[in-house]
Amino acid sequence: MEYNAQFMKEAIKQAKKAESINETPIGAVIVHKGKIIARGYNKRETNKNSLCHAEIMAINKASKKLGGWRLPECDMYVTLEPCPMCAGAIISSRIDNLYFGAYDKKSGCAGSVTDLFKKNLFNHNVNVVGGLMENECADILKNFFKKLRQKKEI
Amino acid sequence: MEYNAQFMKEAIKQAKKAESINETPIGAVIVHKGKIIARGYNKRETNKNSLCHAEIMAINKASKKLGGWRLPECDMYVTLEPCPMCAGAIISSRIDNLYFGAYDKKSGCAGSVTDLFKKNLFNHNVNVVGGLMENECADILKNFFKKLRQKKEI
Repeated sequence: MEYNAQFMKEAIKQAKKAESINETPIGAVIVHKGKIIARGYNKRETNKNSLCHAEIMAINKASKKLGGWRLPECDMYVTLEPCPMCAGAIISSRIDNLYFGAYDKKSGCAGSVTDLFKKNLFNHNVNVVGGLMENECADILKNFFKKLRQKKEI
Repeated sequence: MEYNAQFMKEAIKQAKKAESINETPIGAVIVHKGKIIARGYNKRETNKNSLCHAEIMAINKASKKLGGWRLPECDMYVTLEPCPMCAGAIISSRIDNLYFGAYDKKSGCAGSVTDLFKKNLFNHNVNVVGGLMENECADILKNFFKKLRQKKEI
């Protein structure tokens, strides 16, 4: 499916949910045939589990919903460029399109650090578009870390 | 901790558990201060979830056991070179040493397709040794796929 800003807005809503529980604000949704079937936000600290990134939370839910490990005709919208684990999970679950917001120079695996989505690198190709609603997605993170630093300084 | 063949044998046992339920036979264990704290085997088909690779199953259990998203002083033993998702999860969970058996030319991310463990690529460095008990680990997979082809031919 083509990019639809409405779904990125929903991913941003998810990021804000993470922020509200003091988690690094990253949010994701999975869209199947034009309809959101799963939402997820970062819960690494809350769940005490490094696997609980927004994308993984959403893939878990979408798999339950569709009843199989493949997520055909599914797109992921996520506020931040995926890390290696999440990029791999997106490939493993056979997602068609990945739409992400901000770039992540430190861990991003859709071109920033390395490109795991390079055509024919693995047995499934994901179509990737980055930098969507980039400023809004990046600002949520920047503000979060700014507040965190201010708290530490007090 | 240094490599200990006993733990790779336990990972192989886990791979055989996967085989016994008709899953691609891959097994993993996580060792903390010289003691196995988590075991896992591939359950992708059984759980209908692309995230259920052996390594992820083991990381989930180890996180619960240690009570945090970081797995300090932990080593992973796995029968096959990790895919991008699992390589990323190993980095994300801050595992110290990765010991793997067979190489995976199609999806391996410890040098075969790409090397996600290249020093200073991400914010955590994992020490990696591959090709341990390589033939035994590879044979389990080869035999599994051979039997699968024979079944299909009947």
